[in-house]
Amino acid sequence: MTYIKQFTSKLDQLNCKNLYQGDFFLTWEKTFDEIMATYTVADALRALREDNVSTKIFDSGLGISLFRDNSTRTRFSFGSACNLLGLEVQDLDEGKSQIAHGETVRETANMISFMADVIGIRDDMYIGKGNAYMHEVAKAVREGYLEGVLEQCPTLVNLQCDIDHPTQIMADMNHIIHHFGGIENLKGKKVAMTWAYSPSYGKPLSVPQGVIGLMTRFGMEVSLAHPKGYEVMPEIEKMALKNAAASGGAFTTSNSMEAAFKDADIVYPKSWAPFAAMEKRTKLYGDGDLEGIKVLEKELLTENARHKDWECTEQMMQMTREGKALYLHCLPADISGVSCKEGEVAASVFDRYRVPLYKQASHKPYIIAAMIFLSKVKYPQQVLAELASRNRPRFFGV
Amino acid sequence: MTYIKQFTSKLDQLNCKNLYQGDFFLTWEKTFDEIMATYTVADALRALREDNVSTKIFDSGLGISLFRDNSTRTRFSFGSACNLLGLEVQDLDEGKSQIAHGETVRETANMISFMADVIGIRDDMYIGKGNAYMHEVAKAVREGYLEGVLEQCPTLVNLQCDIDHPTQIMADMNHIIHHFGGIENLKGKKVAMTWAYSPSYGKPLSVPQGVIGLMTRFGMEVSLAHPKGYEVMPEIEKMALKNAAASGGAFTTSNSMEAAFKDADIVYPKSWAPFAAMEKRTKLYGDGDLEGIKVLEKELLTENARHKDWECTEQMMQMTREGKALYLHCLPADISGVSCKEGEVAASVFDRYRVPLYKQASHKPYIIAAMIFLSKVKYPQQVLAELASRNRPRFFGV
Amino acid sequence: MTYIKQFTSKLDQLNCKNLYQGDFFLTWEKTFDEIMATYTVADALRALREDNVSTKIFDSGLGISLFRDNSTRTRFSFGSACNLLGLEVQDLDEGKSQIAHGETVRETANMISFMADVIGIRDDMYIGKGNAYMHEVAKAVREGYLEGVLEQCPTLVNLQCDIDHPTQIMADMNHIIHHFGGIENLKGKKVAMTWAYSPSYGKPLSVPQGVIGLMTRFGMEVSLAHPKGYEVMPEIEKMALKNAAASGGAFTTSNSMEAAFKDADIVYPKSWAPFAAMEKRTKLYGDGDLEGIKVLEKELLTENARHKDWECTEQMMQMTREGKALYLHCLPADISGVSCKEGEVAASVFDRYRVPLYKQASHKPYIIAAMIFLSKVKYPQQVLAELASRNRPRFFGV
Repeated sequence: MTYIKQFTSKLDQLNCKNLYQGDFFLTWEKTFDEIMATYTVADALRALREDNVSTKIFDSGLGISLFRDNSTRTRFSFGSACNLLGLEVQDLDEGKSQIAHGETVRETANMISFMADVIGIRDDMYIGKGNAYMHEVAKAVREGYLEGVLEQCPTLVNLQCDIDHPTQIMADMNHIIHHFGGIENLKGKKVAMTWAYSPSYGKPLSVPQGVIGLMTRFGMEVSLAHPKGYEVMPEIEKMALKNAAASGGAFTTSNSMEAAFKDADIVYPKSWAPFAAMEKRTKLYGDGDLEGIKVLEKELLTENARHKDWECTEQMMQMTREGKALYLHCLPADISGVSCKEGEVAASVFDRYRVPLYKQASHKPYIIAAMIFLSKVKYPQQVLAELASRNRPRFFGV
Repeated sequence: MTYIKQFTSKLDQLNCKNLYQGDFFLTWEKTFDEIMATYTVADALRALREDNVSTKIFDSGLGISLFRDNSTRTRFSFGSACNLLGLEVQDLDEGKSQIAHGETVRETANMISFMADVIGIRDDMYIGKGNAYMHEVAKAVREGYLEGVLEQCPTLVNLQCDIDHPTQIMADMNHIIHHFGGIENLKGKKVAMTWAYSPSYGKPLSVPQGVIGLMTRFGMEVSLAHPKGYEVMPEIEKMALKNAAASGGAFTTSNSMEAAFKDADIVYPKSWAPFAAMEKRTKLYGDGDLEGIKVLEKELLTENARHKDWECTEQMMQMTREGKALYLHCLPADISGVSCKEGEVAASVFDRYRVPLYKQASHKPYIIAAMIFLSKVKYPQQVLAELASRNRPRFFGV
Repeated sequence: MTYIKQFTSKLDQLNCKNLYQGDFFLTWEKTFDEIMATYTVADALRALREDNVSTKIFDSGLGISLFRDNSTRTRFSFGSACNLLGLEVQDLDEGKSQIAHGETVRETANMISFMADVIGIRDDMYIGKGNAYMHEVAKAVREGYLEGVLEQCPTLVNLQCDIDHPTQIMADMNHIIHHFGGIENLKGKKVAMTWAYSPSYGKPLSVPQGVIGLMTRFGMEVSLAHPKGYEVMPEIEKMALKNAAASGGAFTTSNSMEAAFKDADIVYPKSWAPFAAMEKRTKLYGDGDLEGIKVLEKELLTENARHKDWECTEQMMQMTREGKALYLHCLPADISGVSCKEGEVAASVFDRYRVPLYKQASHKPYIIAAMIFLSKVKYPQQVLAELASRNRPRFFGV
């Protein structure tokens, strides 16, 4: 199992000691070394599993999940990551709990965490709420740990908030790194993060924001394009500009899908709701103004329908570098003529990229496992080496 | 632990290598050797567990379950089987997922399977749908595996479809084998698979079809009886005839419960809906014809009520071989005067057979575990022997 | 790991052999030695876990949970306890099962238990029902075991019934023991178990009943106080009197919160519904009298509202021993001005005791684990010593 050395040697070059006992909220709160350490551990865990080596570092312990929005792939990715490390998932189903029964976030967070090593939360529906809620939970359990209530401090993993979708975007980016054969090949590559038409409405901003927040750190040219009115949070754009400058890349915005696709090496066409509309909706929900929500929904769908030309067609793909850009999507995509009449992407484009898209998704369980691993393990190189030399089979029946 | 040899020696006599990396849809798609190998492994796993030997062959990994119909015993049997082998169950709850959100079966199947070793599905409500859906899922993950999306190919286990209920019928048959002391004692035994009255309607055909599809392969005389109009799928009847001829047994059909019970060694009286009605209902659901469904339901209940005499009473049991036939049911049964006013079986008959009925059910977790085991393990004899010699206690506290 | 001796030595002094293969319904069905053995094992398991020693005594097996009422902390405590010992939780969700489908308690209990080592049930809503149901389940699986249906007999743990809430009260009491430095320091201490106002209605009696049933056994003075009409079950009061006499303590009742709080060392102010009203409600539900239930609910809320002065304020706390009584609550509490306008406790009191309250709750997972452990393990001293010497890390990454 000499292959493990390639990962531990990489980690030797990276300063990731602040990940230890930390949480994972937003990619831009992490240093570049910490991002790269996460990829290295994700790849190492995958290499061990593919070699049938068990990577269980826990002999008992819980991974708590709280989904305030529907989820298939993130739910199963979190479940897979916990299982891979030896944690059992217990879902906090707010409907079955006594949470409505007047208890505070601080209380619930501690009550579920006596044997929890990680808490994963999806809370992406309302602007200004999801990320704040996660911080409230993380603060509560850290205090509980310091006060002697909890024997261990569960790490918090953001499974999508109103601002970022770090497990998704980290997986997307690792897919890109693998596709192009290493970060050294990414300098100057062009990424088109563009809006695309969808007949549904109110999709979170966390994916485009996450993409421009992370991908600008690799020396690439990130081009954000959307119809007028579909702006993302202005502070994220500012940060993307800064990132690009620091990494020797570029960050541009436009209202032209064509401009973004032109000579792109990577395209990520995806629907989202305008930030301003999401803010308005959050306020309407806060006020319980159901009538106002209905009106807003109608407005948004009408506005969306004005931009049906924002579709990732074969013609659009032809404009990309040699017509062969890597097509990305967080899935599920709105595929024209398949899952809807008119949508984000033409069926033939989607079909051609189906296998790479599924591989893109396959990184997520490992990314989550790496986030947990690095927050729990003080000496990651040593533990990876020990797992390899322990050499316990994941499947005994081979 | 020399007892393990009795099982490995049996396996030496059986060709079951095609079970390796396969799925389990219908019993009649499996050779007799493969069926017998499944029983042998089920019994071996049980013997090991009863001897407090852990049979965990996985050190991590998921068992995915998808129930499109309510379930208690199959759900817990699947959960128990996965747990016995070291897999953690993760339920795909379609209501909590984004499946409605426009994703295809192929996509969902891959997205949930990155760390899945088995997928168990119950989908028994609509004729022509359930089994087809399972094949779609199995095909999707096999392709995903071949395309390099999945690191392992999850095996598919049919937890009841519109055609067969293989985990149930395999458990029923193993109960029979144990009851009569081996398959060598089954030649010429008579099995009465009969319809019985129930005040509910629309019960799947998978049990009677599964019974005539499997039990005709053991040289027994299988007698299917039901009121006129309650026919099962004609191709299954044809197959049962062929099976019986090949195994030196017989397959007969009639519209007389008495004829079937006469001198029977085994009776399996159970309600089901007519195949033609189930087809009609499937079409009505497809058309969204709720009015038509109501009308059909009323018709079916009225028709059922004409056959209240199809009850497994003490008098009926007296007609069986020495009045002592083995009474079977997949449970829950409609017990007259207990769970309903008039039902499938008299309370005194049910009560007398309660313990054997529960034992019948106790085979199911082991049958499912054996199905998974044989699809995953290339050299089952070797792995069983290694589990015995590893001798890890299932319960450390003895 | 010499520390394990302090626990095994304590166990040497206690006769707890009747816990082996038993169930845990009510604390007063257990001897004092058995109660103390449960605390000793709970503390031992905690010491091992804090020392990063795995306490998995099961290498596979299920813990079944059945919650007939919402739950956060008990649900997670049960899940944590099972996980700590190596059991995987499988929830019996009656909505997803076929239980309505005419099967009996006896049948369901056996059907889910083929690989179950423990069944935890919460059923606290109806007087005369919850505890009886648990006994029905326990009897069913014991019969199943004796009849050869089940290979092991799952132990039943009462996760709150209509009479007692043993996992809660046992945790509360262990918190008291730790707070005062041992049971030898409890003689003569005064406990005020008092009613308190809550804007909700129909809260179970199991907590006050559990408290007076258990805490009177430690030589303390237990003072039960509530407004007229809020009586608990008379037989529990009688038992509390007997307990107190036997332990050299006292049990008094009054209708004055002040009298109870006066010089109290421990206060437990909490809302509950009058026993007579709960009985009436149970009957109304039984009769399906929804109108009657509405009327009763209104009456109860009106009656509650007459006693808003039953609040644990700073002034009330000043009346306790040196103004420093240990404040207890099973949580979630109705905190005035926080979770409701007027409630059980003033915000400043609750806040000051937040950390001890959370620590109180932290005992529950270990209490449940100890209950399971002692019902499963024949020689607890030996197994604890073996776990310590096995010294398998709970977390491999330290």
